[in-house]
This record gives sequence, structure tokens and C-alpha cells, in this order.
Amino acid sequence: MANVYFFGESNEDKQVLGGKGANLGEMIRIGLPVPPGFTIATEVCRIFSKTGKYPAELDSEIKANVEKLEKQLNKRFSDPSNPLLVSVRSGAPVSMPGMMDTVLNLGLNDQTVKALAEKSGNEKFAYDCYRRFLQMFGNVVLGLEHSKFEHALESEKKAQGVELDKDMSTETLKNIIQKYKDVIKADTGKEFTQDPIEQLMAAINAVFDSWNNKRAFAYRRLNHIPDDMGTAVNVQAMVYGNLGDTSGTGVGFTRNPATGENKLYGEYLMNAQGEDVVAGIRTPHPIEDLEKEMPKAYKDLFAAQLLLEKHYKDMQDFEFTIEEGVLYLLQTRNGKRTAQAAVRTAVEMQKEGILSKEQAVLRVPPEQLDQLLHKQLDPVAKTEAEVLTKGLPASPGAAVGEVVMTAARAKEKAEHGTTVILVRTETSPEDIEGMHAAQGILTARGGMTSHAAVVARGMGTCCVSGASDVNCDEEAGSFTIKGQTYKEGDFITLDGATGEVFAGKLRVVEPELSGDFAELMSWADSFRTLKVKANADNPHDSEVARKFGAEGIGLTRTEHMFFDKERILVVREMILAHNVEERKKALAKLLPMQIQDFKGIFKVMAGLPVIIRLLDPPLHEFLPKEEVDIAEVAKEMDIPVKNIKDMIENLHEFNPMLGFRGCRLAITYPEIAEMQAEAILTAAMECEAEGINVIPQIEVPLVGHVKEFVIVRDIIKKVAADIGADGKVKYEIGTMIEVPRAAITADEIAKEADFMSFGTNDLTQMGCGFSRDDAGKFLGNYVDKAIYPRDPFQAIDQDGVGKLMEICIEKARSTKPNIEIGICGEHGGEATSVEFCHKIGMNDVSCSPFRVPIARLAAAQAALKYPKN
Amino acid sequence: MANVYFFGESNEDKQVLGGKGANLGEMIRIGLPVPPGFTIATEVCRIFSKTGKYPAELDSEIKANVEKLEKQLNKRFSDPSNPLLVSVRSGAPVSMPGMMDTVLNLGLNDQTVKALAEKSGNEKFAYDCYRRFLQMFGNVVLGLEHSKFEHALESEKKAQGVELDKDMSTETLKNIIQKYKDVIKADTGKEFTQDPIEQLMAAINAVFDSWNNKRAFAYRRLNHIPDDMGTAVNVQAMVYGNLGDTSGTGVGFTRNPATGENKLYGEYLMNAQGEDVVAGIRTPHPIEDLEKEMPKAYKDLFAAQLLLEKHYKDMQDFEFTIEEGVLYLLQTRNGKRTAQAAVRTAVEMQKEGILSKEQAVLRVPPEQLDQLLHKQLDPVAKTEAEVLTKGLPASPGAAVGEVVMTAARAKEKAEHGTTVILVRTETSPEDIEGMHAAQGILTARGGMTSHAAVVARGMGTCCVSGASDVNCDEEAGSFTIKGQTYKEGDFITLDGATGEVFAGKLRVVEPELSGDFAELMSWADSFRTLKVKANADNPHDSEVARKFGAEGIGLTRTEHMFFDKERILVVREMILAHNVEERKKALAKLLPMQIQDFKGIFKVMAGLPVIIRLLDPPLHEFLPKEEVDIAEVAKEMDIPVKNIKDMIENLHEFNPMLGFRGCRLAITYPEIAEMQAEAILTAAMECEAEGINVIPQIEVPLVGHVKEFVIVRDIIKKVAADIGADGKVKYEIGTMIEVPRAAITADEIAKEADFMSFGTNDLTQMGCGFSRDDAGKFLGNYVDKAIYPRDPFQAIDQDGVGKLMEICIEKARSTKPNIEIGICGEHGGEATSVEFCHKIGMNDVSCSPFRVPIARLAAAQAALKYPKN
Repeated sequence: MANVYFFGESNEDKQVLGGKGANLGEMIRIGLPVPPGFTIATEVCRIFSKTGKYPAELDSEIKANVEKLEKQLNKRFSDPSNPLLVSVRSGAPVSMPGMMDTVLNLGLNDQTVKALAEKSGNEKFAYDCYRRFLQMFGNVVLGLEHSKFEHALESEKKAQGVELDKDMSTETLKNIIQKYKDVIKADTGKEFTQDPIEQLMAAINAVFDSWNNKRAFAYRRLNHIPDDMGTAVNVQAMVYGNLGDTSGTGVGFTRNPATGENKLYGEYLMNAQGEDVVAGIRTPHPIEDLEKEMPKAYKDLFAAQLLLEKHYKDMQDFEFTIEEGVLYLLQTRNGKRTAQAAVRTAVEMQKEGILSKEQAVLRVPPEQLDQLLHKQLDPVAKTEAEVLTKGLPASPGAAVGEVVMTAARAKEKAEHGTTVILVRTETSPEDIEGMHAAQGILTARGGMTSHAAVVARGMGTCCVSGASDVNCDEEAGSFTIKGQTYKEGDFITLDGATGEVFAGKLRVVEPELSGDFAELMSWADSFRTLKVKANADNPHDSEVARKFGAEGIGLTRTEHMFFDKERILVVREMILAHNVEERKKALAKLLPMQIQDFKGIFKVMAGLPVIIRLLDPPLHEFLPKEEVDIAEVAKEMDIPVKNIKDMIENLHEFNPMLGFRGCRLAITYPEIAEMQAEAILTAAMECEAEGINVIPQIEVPLVGHVKEFVIVRDIIKKVAADIGADGKVKYEIGTMIEVPRAAITADEIAKEADFMSFGTNDLTQMGCGFSRDDAGKFLGNYVDKAIYPRDPFQAIDQDGVGKLMEICIEKARSTKPNIEIGICGEHGGEATSVEFCHKIGMNDVSCSPFRVPIARLAAAQAALKYPKN
Repeated sequence: MANVYFFGESNEDKQVLGGKGANLGEMIRIGLPVPPGFTIATEVCRIFSKTGKYPAELDSEIKANVEKLEKQLNKRFSDPSNPLLVSVRSGAPVSMPGMMDTVLNLGLNDQTVKALAEKSGNEKFAYDCYRRFLQMFGNVVLGLEHSKFEHALESEKKAQGVELDKDMSTETLKNIIQKYKDVIKADTGKEFTQDPIEQLMAAINAVFDSWNNKRAFAYRRLNHIPDDMGTAVNVQAMVYGNLGDTSGTGVGFTRNPATGENKLYGEYLMNAQGEDVVAGIRTPHPIEDLEKEMPKAYKDLFAAQLLLEKHYKDMQDFEFTIEEGVLYLLQTRNGKRTAQAAVRTAVEMQKEGILSKEQAVLRVPPEQLDQLLHKQLDPVAKTEAEVLTKGLPASPGAAVGEVVMTAARAKEKAEHGTTVILVRTETSPEDIEGMHAAQGILTARGGMTSHAAVVARGMGTCCVSGASDVNCDEEAGSFTIKGQTYKEGDFITLDGATGEVFAGKLRVVEPELSGDFAELMSWADSFRTLKVKANADNPHDSEVARKFGAEGIGLTRTEHMFFDKERILVVREMILAHNVEERKKALAKLLPMQIQDFKGIFKVMAGLPVIIRLLDPPLHEFLPKEEVDIAEVAKEMDIPVKNIKDMIENLHEFNPMLGFRGCRLAITYPEIAEMQAEAILTAAMECEAEGINVIPQIEVPLVGHVKEFVIVRDIIKKVAADIGADGKVKYEIGTMIEVPRAAITADEIAKEADFMSFGTNDLTQMGCGFSRDDAGKFLGNYVDKAIYPRDPFQAIDQDGVGKLMEICIEKARSTKPNIEIGICGEHGGEATSVEFCHKIGMNDVSCSPFRVPIARLAAAQAALKYPKN
């Protein structure tokens, strides 16, 4: 395998060439104008990361490709009249915008700068290029601090009485260039190299090195990108958008990335380089304006983007440069888009005949739906609220939170549970973690394609960018809008759909889930084989779940019902009982309440199955903890404080997660399980009597041994017989699988149980030996060290806990082939986990109501990717 | 299959006929004099337990066998001149002495009692038999309270002015019989049945019923006997040892059950029934006296016992009755024996040519060795101590503990960790649990074969019986010896080898392990394939382990070294450090101490492998808990109290078992693992330099993911390289398997690790979801309910945790076929667990030093029972 590929001459995919490199070659092959160049493959990065060395033949391969480039362009490195100038950019298989290093104008030196001046007819431009190159090279390649160059620049500007960069004269630039060279000499002990090949080798090394910088590492963590993927490096001939008024540069999307509207969308700046647009320093013009300004270039661009989308069959995000009237495409990739845009694009592309329904369903990342499913600002509240200012609607959604002025503070406060809005002049890749932590982002500068806007859309975080009224004072920890100061801790509200900024907290409302969304979901539902249910403990949540398409309730946690203010006293009576009789007396008071609980849920879920889990948590969770609360309970119950304290002491556990809970309660105090079984079955009978079809499934928690299950099942069956439920209600009795032993002995349990449901939270805790409450001390460190690719409480640890699940399913089906197996941990609404559940042959997943559509889509994609035999 | 078998006419084994029934038939077949009868099979008990009903044909089968018995003896039920009288006794496949019910003299009624009077020539004897039968029948079969009969007896004795039972006249007995009948009529509403067949059917039912009485249930729990085994019932013609001076009854052992000496051993009483000997009410004579008293009977007995041992090839425990000079054998079974006797008998029987070495090794229950391995009274201390009194040396060993006067108190105090000595007038089956809880047992009455003596020997508990100076006052909670009172809580010491009782606490010493023991163990070692190692944390324990035959150290817990008084301060410095530098400073102080720790162990274990585990427990375990201790530490370390409290608060965990511990410490604070690795390897190098061969194996705890192991292994390897240990020391790096995830992914871990060792304590905690510290709340209940056959922390839960172990081994060997796999949990010294470890193909087991011989013997038995292919 070669290490270096000339653009357009290889069919290798983006795993080898990186996204950028693969697409540049592809564009050339479909006839689009792309400056030539070559790609150094990702494998080189992997080898370099692992061994610290490059393949022996790399050097000669690079040189051969430089020669080929020189021949094709009839330009040469160091040629005093027609020098080759190149850019050196990273390009990983997965886009990591701005995370790694880039060097532009490489090939400039004291000689070639003169040629550039002559060819461009613009000496100042040429020396400014040279200055920029020295600064970039010094900073990125040689590792010198940015501030040293800034300092040299500022001191020279001051000496010359120049205020703005654009007002610097050629002489000033030449002085600065000398000062830059002095900085480099002083810091590295060596002269700045005039040899373009040396420059190139050093720049390539720097870009590969940047794969492992802190920023890139953090980005990969957040986006679940493996560290051993590696980046490619692209060396490409320079073209200039800043050669004067017939030059320009811009970025475009083949469709609107915020709304999905099928219309060329983008921004450009005349006489500018690409980073001027992206960095958000100058606010660019909408792409429509280009039609008037340069009709020919616009026509070419319009045709090019049509071709791009037709070829890639996906909305493209592309960069272009116009050099003296001639259009070049510098990059294309699938465009990041909002959830709304993703759904609309997918549905419309199906209708336009570009995609099949299957492809359309596969096109939308399930996690992204989260954006659609969450709240928007209440329109009524908006009309009454004061609009402080308006920026660009960079990423949709609504955000209400406390102001923070730095990424670090955002992270810190968010970790303490505060919802925050990050307010910055502009964001940079260093802010990544803070942006992730924030509810919303507000920037003073930058357009719809600025760093803040692109990243926020990717994250699904509400963002208002380019709100130029905003003046940030990071040191003071505040910002002003029109003279009014807003301090850290003040509340503001953002509307990402309109770009409006409000003071205080505005009310937010649920989104509408019809139109394209409904259509896409109906396609998804037709493909998926997994049932999707919801976890809901009350009629309201059940209603939300049903609205979101839940096909049943996969988990009703009865303990949540016990914390109700009027009930907790009765529950405590039950716990503090001295004997069975007292306990039964308290339980008798709970019975009618529980009957009503279950009837409420059954009515909402009429015709659909409802899994109700018996009491699970350790009893001490229901007892008061603080002195004042203990005293209150003692008074209310007319019991000495000491008795309550003794009972709390008595129920204290060293490891409550592994303690006296779950079915262990039912086995020790059968009367509790009896009461709950009676409540469930009575509720079901009453519903049936009212003509409501009820499918109750009673679930026994924390089973580890089949005999535990059998004992509790028989308690329930006896209750059913005693109250005459048999024949009147079709109920099932099943079990949670959350103890590793249960998974390992699932063949025995399946013989006795009607259904099984993985409790992957506890299964992860016991399987991995992590207490979720305590793992904070080390689990972050573990994910940083890539011990677990992702937090195993967020995404199923497929290699470990997942293996246990596979063993369980295999064993269970060996004795009861058709047993229904589901999952009701939080993993049930996480896309990779849903895919895993599909692959290992489960029947259904259950998650929180708001994640039901995500699970439906993820299940459909899993079914399309892994069809069952 | 038949339900009923006539003695001697069936080859069925004791699974079908029970131990007693099978042996009665066997004795008949080898020509020994046994009163005839028949056995109702265990299957009937199982059917009855499960369904509450008897097989339909049982009734007719019983009647047919009764007829056969009548014909053989030429006696008939209800025959006014020659009536058939029988006993009805339980007989399970496994001996459960005294746990189930027995009915004697069945067949007596108002008519047959007269015939018995006539035939025996002893009217008083006959009516006393009838009286006893009525009482037994009323109590056992009809379920009336014992006290009702006692009350009737006492009131009649009082009315007649009779003090002792033996002084009752025939008239008095007749009155009592009438009163007994009245009691039965009053309580049951029915007359006492005069029909022997009705009596028989009711008695059989009562015996089967007693299989499920509370006592029997508790006994089965303690002795790990399954509840679905069931008991047989034996119906046998009565013979009488109480027909006068040429009648008698006794029990014998073919060898001495305490010492193993090859000499007939036993006790008898003239003119007595069997239960008089067993119950310990009269103190019987040594069997040698019988030779003088009844030479012919003695000669028959001596010949019979020789035949018995020759036939059974094991020491026999038999019961006999002499009825008017004629010997009958009523029972034989393998004799319970002390460990010393078991070992001596096995070794001597091999030398006598009765057993092979394999059979001899299989003959000794491994757990019993515990008795030999534990302490004896220091002979010097004994000469200086005051002997309070002397009883019979009923069960060997020494016991020091606090006096308790009831079984309930014994159980209660033992549960609180107090070592107690149970002092009773005599024990009864009701006392079983208390006897089990006690360190030693002292009784005022009863011989070497009394209940207390038999049970204590079975349990391996030190027992002195028949110490007639002892006068118990249960109500006062004290006893007196020669006027001196000893209260509950006072300390006494027992010498089970001599029967001596001492005041206070005497020093105890280690046993000698030579002679027969050494010989048996050498045979065992030649058969076993499992290596046996010991868990030891210091040179002393290592020495003990080596003396007991350990072939290496399977677990050195380094954390125990950290609690040393002078070190704990340094450890706390380390924990309270604010940064790496401070932490390293504290660790530097620990390094030389740890080097000495390891050198000490290495020297003792020269030439043998030593596994040293890196620091495992959560750090908060090393911090003080009480206010005063915190204040002291603060003062010693010159740190504000608040800082320490903050740190304690900071390190607090909800579920410490699943918290920040094990390799998680090494990954977060690599400097701790570095210090320990340096100490281990430096100690090894220093030993090697002194010419001591050292085989260190460094063990990483709590690994769940292969990457955890690799990170810590690489830390250790780097240390080895840095200090120049490579090449100088042959060390290995392996891992504990205690997290279920590690077992499930053992294929990956085995690729990287040199060895593996199951930590089955934690594997059980995580696999079953039990916190050991908390399981007390429900685990007793679980064992009672037979959910787990035994406490899974005592014996490996083979069906669950064991499955995980099997999966682990299979996976590990799939990638590293020869990887050494051991166990170092407490299960490593438990016989059934050792057998399991052998069966699943492990390489070694490690246990506490005192259990090493048990593990060696268990491993040998496992190898004999399950030879490897």
C-alpha cells in the first residue's frame, strides 16, 4: 500500500484518505475545479502515533508527488518566477472542524515572495502572505507562542503609528517579517528555513502531531471518535481569494442546514481568505448577493453545488474560492444540520427520488431527534418579554440559564447542576467543553457558519451568534447590551430559531411532532422489528409516552408512588411496624391508593402491555434522614424519636446497592408483595369491568436465583387466586435481569418466568463492579484513558455487560424459545445501545418518554443495517 | 417398585431403604441375629412431603408385611396369648440421630398387655410398657403435649406417695394408664385405639411427618442434607432389654471413636431399654464389664462386631439388646468419630489390608481435620491451673469461653462474636443450634454416647460430658461446682481430651501433626493434582503455612501491612496529600518498610512462588472514624481537624465495595503502585543477592477490563526496567478475577496476564448482588428457605458463581491454554469448593494456613473421585 495518493487518482475511501482528501479526489473525478495536490494516508498517522516514526519510504513518496504537482501546474518550489505554494491541512475520516493544525502559503521564502508580488501585481498582498506564513509556521510547526508574534506585530504597528492591520504598508510588513524571523531565531536557535521541502516536511509532521493535541483529544471524547483512527494530511496548491476585487471566498450548503429548505445557502466575503469567513471576524454576505456581484462565478458555483448533491446524494457543505474570477472548490463534505433540517432533507430527498425510504430513515442520526423533541419558547411569553437584542439564529431550540463568561465557568457550574448560557465575543476550539456544558451559546461576532454556529448545531445546543450589541468583559465576569450590564448568575433566555435574546427566564413549550417528522417516523416504524416502550410511573408520563409512539410501558417503578406527601407517612408506618399484623395494617391503607395508581396508568395505556415492577429500593430510602425530619415523623406518628433512629440504624447498609432490596423484600415481607399484587390485579379487574382492555405484566426485581423468582411468583399467583383474578385478567409474571447470576442462570429462570427485562443500570453496576453513585471519582478518568470507549452508564458496555446479555438471551431461549426479552435501563433510549439490543435478538426496548422517537428511529436503522434471517 | 421391603429380602441401597433399614437387612443376610421387620421406602416420604398423600397400594403392602412378620414369629397383632409388638422408627439415607420420631411397644392394648405380663412373668414391667406406649403414642402420634402426661403421672405418684418411677406399683401404673387414656379422650375427642393396625398406620404417618419438623429441618440445614431426600420407616419386632437381670442393652463401636484405637468400645446397662443408654439418664458401664457379667452374650457380641467391621470395611457403631440372655443387633452404621480417630482408623485399616491407600484417603472427611489442626491446652498451663471437676472426655480439643446456660443464649452471644461454652444438665435435640454456636459443651449427665457427646464429636466441638459435680440453675443463669457458683459471662476452660474443667482462661497450644496424620497426608499429596497454597500477610503466617504443607503463598494482602501503628500515620499522610509530590514523599517513607515486609515473606517461602496483591481497599478505610481519633491524627500531623473531616467526607462512598478501590487506585494514583512494585522487586533482588531463590507474582486487584490490567502491568514493568530488576528477578504479573466482567472477558485478559486468581468473595458479592456486610439481613432466611443450599460465602455457589468461573476458565484457556488459574477467596479451604475447583480444571487453591491440610485432603479426594483424562 502506498502512503501518498495524488488527488483523483485513487479509489481509496475516507478511512484511508480522510474525509477531505477522499472528497477532493472525488470532486476532481466528477469534473469539478479543484486545485491539485496529494493526500498522505491516515495509516501514516497511526504508525506515527504508535511508534513515533514515519515509514521509511514516506520521504521519497512525498517528494515524488511534489514533483508531479510541479509538473502539472508548471510551477516549482523556490522557482523565482513561478513558485509552487501549497496549503497543508489535516483531514480525518470523521470531520473534526478546527481541532487540528493547518499551514497556508507554504513555499514562500525571501525569493518566492517577490515572485508572488509580481504575479499578483500586489506587493503588499505578497508580503502579508509571507508574514502570515511565518507566523503560522512559527506557531504551528515550531511551537512558538502566538503572543510572541502578536507582540512583534503590535510593537511595529505602534512604531509606525498604524492602527488597523489592513493599513500596514509593505515596508511595515517587511519590518514585521524581519522581527518574526528574529523571534524564530531567538527561540529555536536556528534560522527560519528558506527551503520549501524542509518547510513541507516540518508542516506535515506538525499536522500529524496535532492529532494528539488536547483539543483534538477532548473533541474525540465528546464525539466518541476512537483515538486510533488517525488523520490524513492534504497538501494542495494554494489559490487566493484575496487577490483583489475579482477574488473572494465562501462556504455554502446545498440546502439550508438550519431548516432543511432545498435552496443554495451560504456566505462569502470578497477579497478574503477562507478563515476570514469561518473565524467570524468579518460578517459575510449571503450567497444570493454573489449573483449580482459576479454572475459568472455564481453560475458556476450554482451548477457545481447541484452536481455535488446529485453525486453525493446528501446535502453538501462546501468551501470555495474565486481567484481572479475563476471558481475553485476546496472542500466538500456532508453538511452538519439541525434535527429539523435532517428530517426535512431526508423526507424531501425521498420525495425528489434521490433516496429510498430506507436510505432516508438511515440518514437521520437518532440522537439528533432530541433537538426536535425538546422545548421551544412559549410564543405568548415571548410577546410580553423584552427583547434585549437580536443575533443570528445559529442553532435552533430554546435555552434558559445563568450567564457565564468563560468555558471553564460553564463547565464548572454545569457540573454543579446549574443550567448556564455561555456568552463569548466569539468561540474557539478551546471552548469545546464549555460549549458542551452550556444550555445555550450567545456570541457577539461570527456568522451562521462561524465556529460557534457549526459546533452548536452539531451538538444540538441552542445558539445565537453575531449579536453585535453584546460587549463581553470576561475579566469583570459580565457583558453589556446597550449600556445595561448582565453579570454572571443573571438569567437570560435565547431563542435559537429567531436569534432573539431575552432578559430573565421565559416559559418554554413542547414541540409539534407532525409533518416531515411524523412521516419519517412512520417509515421507521415500518422497518423496525424491536418494539419500543416507555418507562413511566404515572398517567401523565404514560400519556406523553403514548403520544411519542410508545407501544406499552416497559417499566413502572412503584416506589416513586410511595414518596407522595400523604403516603410517605403510611409507608413509614409500614416500615416501622413491629410485626406482621402492624405491617399489614399499614399496607391495607396503601392498597386503595395503589389501586388508583395502577388504574390511572392502565386507562391511558388501554390495549397495550404495562410492566409494573414490585417495590425495589432498600427500605431506609423511605425513612427521614435529617434530625428535623426525624423529629417531625416521630411527632406525626407518635413514636419516640429514639425508635425511629434505632430503626434507621438497624436498616443502615454498607453497600445498599447490594443490600436488602428488590425481591429480597418480597421474600422477607411477603405481605408487601401481596398488597402490590392485589392492587395491580384489582385495578386490572376494575378496568376490565369498565370495558378497558388491560395487559398487566408484574415484574419481580433483583432476582439472582430462580428460586427467588418462584417464591415471589407463587405469592402473586396465590393472591390472584384468592381475589378471583384468574380468568378475569390476562396477567403475566416476569423478572428483571440485573444481577449477573440471573443472566448466567437464565435457562433456569426462563423456564418459570413469562418475560424478562434487562435492568442494565444495575447489571452494569454489578457486572463492572462500579457503584454509579461513587464512580464519579474514577470513571471520568477511565473514559479519558480510553479504558471504556464511553461511559458504560450512558452506552451499553457491549464487550462486557453486553456479553452477559448475550449469554442470558442464549440461555433463556434454550429453555423457552419465544420468551419476550426487553430492556428498561436508561440505555433503552440510547442509539448504539438500541442497535446492540436489536443485534442480540431482543424483543423490545423501553426508555424515558422523551426518548421514545429516538429509540424508534434507532431500532429502524438497526433493522435496516442488520436484517434478521 | 414396591413401597415396602421385608428385612433382608431386598438388595436396595440406603437411598431407598434408609441407612437403618438397609443395614438391618444387610446384617440379616450376613447371619447376624436381628429381630425381623420391614422397611417402608424413602420414596413414600418424598411423595407424602410433596402431595400430602400416600401411594394407594401402601396400605395393603403394609398389611401383607405385617402378616409375613406374624407368620415368621408365630405371633399376631391383638393375640391375647402371643401378641406381636413392634417398634416404628425413622431411618433416613443419612444419619440424623434423634431428630425424628420413634414409637415403641406398638401393639399393646388392654388385652395384649396381659399376655406380655404373662410371657415376661413381670406384670409391672408389662404395664409400665403400656404406660410408656400410651405416652409416646399420645405425644408423638396424636400430638398431645408431653406435659399433660407428665402432669397425670406426677399427680398419681403424689396421690400414692411414690417418689421414684421405679417404685410405682402395678396398681399405680394401671391408674396412670387410665389417666393417660382420659387425657387422650379429652384432647382428641376419641378413645385411644385398641386396634394395633390402626396404631401402626398412625405411627407410620407420624414418623413420616416428623421428617419436616423444625428440629429435623434445622439439622439438615446445619449438615447440608437436602430436604427432598426423605426418610424411610422401619417396623420391627420388639425385643426387651428390661426383662430382668439377664436382659440388657448397649451401644458399641468396633474401634474407639475418640482415639481410633482398634479395640471394641462401648457401654451397656442391664435391665434397661436402649434410650436409657442414649439419653444419658443412667450412667452406663464400660463394655468390658459385660464379659464378666454375661460371658456368653459378650462372646457373641465380640464375634458379631468383628463380622460387622469385616463386612462393612469401616468402623461400626451398633446397638444391641440382650433379651433373657439372647443377643440381638438392632442397628449398625458407620461410626461417627473424632478427626484423630478418623485418621488413625483410615491409616491402620490400610496397614491391616482392609483398605487401599486411595480408600483410606477417601475415608476422612476433609473438614474434620479442622479438629486436629486446632489448639490443645498448654500442658504447662494445665499443671498450674485449678481443676474444678472432671467429666468424661466426650469430644477432643480445647475450649475457652464465657459460660452460657441455654442454647438460645449460646446462639445469641455467638452471633455477637463472643466465644461461649454451653453448660447444660444434659442436651437434647432442641439444643442443636446452640451447640453449634458454642466453642465447647459441658454436661452434668450422660456418657460417652450421650446426645451431647455424639453430636459434639460430629461437629468437632470440644465436649466434656457427665461431669456430675456440675449443678445447673438455668433460671439463675449459673451453675455450681462444690458450692462455688459460676455465672453467665464467667470464663471457663475445657479439655476435651481428658474431661477436665478449669476456671478462667488457659493458654492453648498448636497440635502435633506427625504420625498417622503425616502418613495420610503424604498419601493425599501423592494423589492430588491441585496445588495448595496459603493466604498469608506476614512471615509468621507464612511459616505456619509452610509447616502445614503450603506450596506457595496464593495471596498476600498488602493493606494489612498498612495498619501497623507506626505506619498508619504515614499512610494517612499519603492519603491526605494535596498533590503528587506530597504523595510521593509519604510513599518514599513507606518504601523501605514494604521492602522489609516482602523480604520477610520471601525468605520464609524461599524457592516457592509468592503472590503479592497491590493495595486493594478504599482509602477511607485507613482514615480514623471516631472524633477522638480524628483529633489525634490532626494533632500528630499538624493539620486542622476540618481538613481531615473534609477528606473523610470527600472519600465517603455509598457503596464502597463497588467504589474507588483495587486497580482503580493504581490507575488514578500510579505512584502508589509504583512504590509497591519497587518494594516487591527490590526485596526480591536483595533476597536473590543473598542467595535466596524468590518467585514473586505481582497481582492486580479488581480488574474488570483488560485495559485496566494493561495500564497497571505497564506501570510495574516500567518500574522493573527503571530499577534494573529485569533479568535479575523472574517475576510475573497477573490479576484477580473478582469482577464478573473480568470473568466474561477472560479471553482478552489472559492474553496479557501471566496468571489469574479467583477472588470468590467479591465475585460472589458482585455475581449474586449480595453485600457481605449487609447480607445478614436476609441470607439466613435465604438458606432457611433453601434458595441457596448453603451460604454462598462459605461454599461456592456452583450453579451461579461457579458458572461464571467455568466461563472464565474456558475463555482464558482459549487464548492462553496453559495460564495458571487459582483461587484465593475463603472458599479455597472449603472441601466442596476445592472439589469444584478441581473439577473445573483449576491449577491451585489458596486458603488460610490452618486450612491448608483440609484443602490438601479435599484436593486428593477430588482427584480420586474425578480423575483427569
